[in-house]
Amino acid sequence: MTTLALHPTFDRIVVEPHIAAARSRGRVCLLGAGPGDPELLTLRGLRRLREADAVVYDHLVAPETLELASEHAQRIYVGKQDSRHSMPQEAINALLVALARQGNVVVRLKGGDPFVFGRGGEEASHLARCGVPFEVVPGVTAASGAAASACIPLTHRDHAHACVFVTGHRRDGATDWARLARGDHTLVVYMGLSQLRGITAELLAHGMPADTPAAAIEAATTRRQCVVVASLATLADDVRGGSLKPPTIVIIGAVVALRRELLAAPQHDRAAALAD
Amino acid sequence: MTTLALHPTFDRIVVEPHIAAARSRGRVCLLGAGPGDPELLTLRGLRRLREADAVVYDHLVAPETLELASEHAQRIYVGKQDSRHSMPQEAINALLVALARQGNVVVRLKGGDPFVFGRGGEEASHLARCGVPFEVVPGVTAASGAAASACIPLTHRDHAHACVFVTGHRRDGATDWARLARGDHTLVVYMGLSQLRGITAELLAHGMPADTPAAAIEAATTRRQCVVVASLATLADDVRGGSLKPPTIVIIGAVVALRRELLAAPQHDRAAALAD
Repeated sequence: MTTLALHPTFDRIVVEPHIAAARSRGRVCLLGAGPGDPELLTLRGLRRLREADAVVYDHLVAPETLELASEHAQRIYVGKQDSRHSMPQEAINALLVALARQGNVVVRLKGGDPFVFGRGGEEASHLARCGVPFEVVPGVTAASGAAASACIPLTHRDHAHACVFVTGHRRDGATDWARLARGDHTLVVYMGLSQLRGITAELLAHGMPADTPAAAIEAATTRRQCVVVASLATLADDVRGGSLKPPTIVIIGAVVALRRELLAAPQHDRAAALAD
Repeated sequence: MTTLALHPTFDRIVVEPHIAAARSRGRVCLLGAGPGDPELLTLRGLRRLREADAVVYDHLVAPETLELASEHAQRIYVGKQDSRHSMPQEAINALLVALARQGNVVVRLKGGDPFVFGRGGEEASHLARCGVPFEVVPGVTAASGAAASACIPLTHRDHAHACVFVTGHRRDGATDWARLARGDHTLVVYMGLSQLRGITAELLAHGMPADTPAAAIEAATTRRQCVVVASLATLADDVRGGSLKPPTIVIIGAVVALRRELLAAPQHDRAAALAD
């Protein structure tokens, strides 16, 4: 039994390698849990959770997903993104390496897809530099989840020939909104809630039409899902009125107008599907 | 037993509704099978396949995925995209409606995610107009699958703050390559193989640096996966030299250079993971 002293907040993490674990089998799987609904985990993801000795997970991972891990697996919470209460990325990197070097089969469980705003690239780089074997198992990204459960196609032959994923939390604040304001793409903003007013103002200032359909989806694919549909000009106010909370994803573009048409179909199955 | 006369090529499709199927339970699930590897299907996807009376599937769906459907389910092949041998979209739409109206639980099984270049929007619109209940189950999109299995993060705090998905097969040929040639995004071209030389030429002509790292990934996440890494200037020649075939996805941007760094880690696990 080893105590890792990685960070003041987490200095009591106790790492108990599975008794059968040989040092040489230590490895890390960067695993995308999908957009929220536990059933949107992949079959490969389920297999990796069952094999895990340790699961290092984020705030956005559903408790039901964690329950799929093997009984003996140690669960280690490393906090939510965008919060002062989360473990610094460097500490997470060090934790993954330490667990693997102790011979553990480690699953690093993230919401969505590890390589789309999931910092999976940063973690993979660190593991590679440290010589720790790793694998990346992709997941359903939040944009796909929100699109499906809010009935907003991300591309459409008549309305959107590209889709662009950006983050509302850019470190240097240098997102090129002028470029994003033009074209027939669908714009998806991950983690866009706290900066929403600034983002919509930038897009409007750079010429995106004020009546461009726009939607914000809180907790997409979960029972708590809440969708606010508005225009680019009114979205920030309407979202505030709706008191949306993170995780919220924003979709802007002509495709948002298709939602009304798609919801004209009988809806009981969709509701049942969400409640399954 | 009913024979649907939808299209000359497919006029012998025989629809046999499950004996227990009441007309009222007819519905359609637009289901993303994921990027190729059958284990990248979601748990929800597996559940829907098990419930299905009929599975209407594309060329890109793996045989192993189809085998997951219930034994009694009728399998109906509607051909590959980008081929004269495929069923026209209008005929697919009509087939889905007809099957559902006969009381069948229908799964429309597509490679990747239904709402990312999957024509799921078009099919959903038609179902809604016809009053057929439907549900969309998202899948791992090809970009996420290729990124994970080729070790190329789509976003990275130091290299790419956005990712853009475009299709190489645009109906009107009016993709705005000038806008796509600039910025620190990752550019992912779906179905980009046949137009690759034209696409790279457009990007170069609009100022994207010739040494921008670029990769083409054939049959991502499957045992047949083949990755060609080059620069924007050389990709079209190198891909021709490698004799890549569809389905091939193209990733262009600084993140492609991370692949070499990530592959420096011990590789046996990744190979084993692909071969699982």
